[in-house]
Amino acid sequence: MPEPAALGEFERIARFFRPLTAGTPGALDLSDDAALLAPRPGHVLVVTVDALVEGVHFRPEDPPDLVARKMLRVNLSDLAAMGADALGYVMTTALPRRCGEDWLAGFAAGLAADQAEFGVGLLGGDSVATPGPITLSLTAFGEVPAGQAIRRNGARPGDGLFVTGTIGDGALGLLALAGRLDFLDPAHRAFLADRYQLPRPRSGVGPALRGLARAMLDVSDGLLGDLAHIAETSCVAAEVDRDRVPLSPAGRAAVTRDPALWDVVLGGGDDYELLFAATAGGVPEAIAGVPVTPIGRIVAGQGIRVLDGEGRSLTVAGTGYRHF
Amino acid sequence: MPEPAALGEFERIARFFRPLTAGTPGALDLSDDAALLAPRPGHVLVVTVDALVEGVHFRPEDPPDLVARKMLRVNLSDLAAMGADALGYVMTTALPRRCGEDWLAGFAAGLAADQAEFGVGLLGGDSVATPGPITLSLTAFGEVPAGQAIRRNGARPGDGLFVTGTIGDGALGLLALAGRLDFLDPAHRAFLADRYQLPRPRSGVGPALRGLARAMLDVSDGLLGDLAHIAETSCVAAEVDRDRVPLSPAGRAAVTRDPALWDVVLGGGDDYELLFAATAGGVPEAIAGVPVTPIGRIVAGQGIRVLDGEGRSLTVAGTGYRHF
Repeated sequence: MPEPAALGEFERIARFFRPLTAGTPGALDLSDDAALLAPRPGHVLVVTVDALVEGVHFRPEDPPDLVARKMLRVNLSDLAAMGADALGYVMTTALPRRCGEDWLAGFAAGLAADQAEFGVGLLGGDSVATPGPITLSLTAFGEVPAGQAIRRNGARPGDGLFVTGTIGDGALGLLALAGRLDFLDPAHRAFLADRYQLPRPRSGVGPALRGLARAMLDVSDGLLGDLAHIAETSCVAAEVDRDRVPLSPAGRAAVTRDPALWDVVLGGGDDYELLFAATAGGVPEAIAGVPVTPIGRIVAGQGIRVLDGEGRSLTVAGTGYRHF
Repeated sequence: MPEPAALGEFERIARFFRPLTAGTPGALDLSDDAALLAPRPGHVLVVTVDALVEGVHFRPEDPPDLVARKMLRVNLSDLAAMGADALGYVMTTALPRRCGEDWLAGFAAGLAADQAEFGVGLLGGDSVATPGPITLSLTAFGEVPAGQAIRRNGARPGDGLFVTGTIGDGALGLLALAGRLDFLDPAHRAFLADRYQLPRPRSGVGPALRGLARAMLDVSDGLLGDLAHIAETSCVAAEVDRDRVPLSPAGRAAVTRDPALWDVVLGGGDDYELLFAATAGGVPEAIAGVPVTPIGRIVAGQGIRVLDGEGRSLTVAGTGYRHF
């Protein structure tokens, strides 16, 4: 068995990455200069890219399979937010010398698990050395019928505002991992940490919203900050009824104990839920097994407003959130 | 004028990257979760990705416009090697804090210059911070008529072996920049250094070889190492007539003064010329203004051999080159 440092680029590709191309003929076995990819007739490709840096986007102690799955999932979430069906991905890995065979095996196992779960395959990549932190970049491809991609700029006054799943778990999970929610019971802390480390891209929901959602994105920067993107690009204002924002039991326990955590729930990031505007009344309560909750409305004007149970404006200290 | 550190992600995108999407409607102004891309009817997309790390793939003192152009060009070279016409690209930049507005302005200017030269546009990207070295990843897209991509595995005994341009300038250029070719005159050194820092992807030649080249790749790991890839995937052997390998005047001056530099010419990398096998006789002497030189032949068997003027085998100490 060679030392990790003895494992050259070709052996690394053959052992850990080529198996991830099984079932993806366009990858050409990773033996050519490039891969081949074609959308079905009448469809266009949807392309998204994200970079993750160790110590910035994930913690050095995070296990490699979770890092790999998070990298893939944040991109799948972007595809879902456009209403696209996921197809495949290419990636680059810049790895320090300490990432040996065990690390690579875990990393590849995480990708294999998620490829099976989300029906995507590896198309190509580049694997280089770095003297710095682990730095990953992933470009994901989906497809959508021509003209049916769901953009951010289609919200109109009178539309309802909806989110999938629950909000705030990712940002609370990061606090839980940092030991700052020790007042919660261990099961709740574990739930939140898992939600931070392993996003659930709503890949089944996004494509089902084609023709229904008029504006959509995935909540990665925080509910209010991302809602501001929809409002700005659509040239409208938005109102959120705070008490209707769906929370997990763990999230509910957190804000009940410390109401200041509402700022984290509404302003923190890493939710990877879908936020969309649609004609009120046409949206089912669940899609593909995921709850869909009305949380507010689109109105004329600009900016966003958070309302309490009696319709009074609340002030939220959130990241990326601009007040009126 | 804000301090560099005060420039947030959104301002950075708006000021430096959004202008690069002019003329690329599928970029959606970088204001959505993803970009849209469709090959023309009857065509498939060709996708390639490369990562570049400061201190590994370029020197910390290299100017940002040259770094940007090299990153784009190495990917355009891969597209050309598949016979594809280039369309566009997405990229991620992981930048340390010291890369302020001046650096970004130079980087974007380099991309803008090459977008105009090669007819490609920015489709999307992600811009993140890193505590480590500058780390770049670029995914480039081209298109090719369905079934006409030129792969590496189609070489057959009897085919001639051809290269574009001149060989060895990139690897010699790296030596020149390191002060190890000071016996050359300054103009030759400057020529070689430029060839290392600014590859010339053969974007006009690659598509013209569809239907003509039976196996092709771009020379990035070194002529002999890359020829070994063609030989292995095609299950053939290859012979190179060393004296027919085309050299620039600077390259010729280098090996004349120090014949040991032949190993650098034949085994070094960073040429970004096209190497291909084709039926002898059907290949013009120049394509799209670039000289095309016959350098050897495909024969039955396995491995590669370098021959001198009398047909005797030469031993070459090259990187990535496996002897019989």
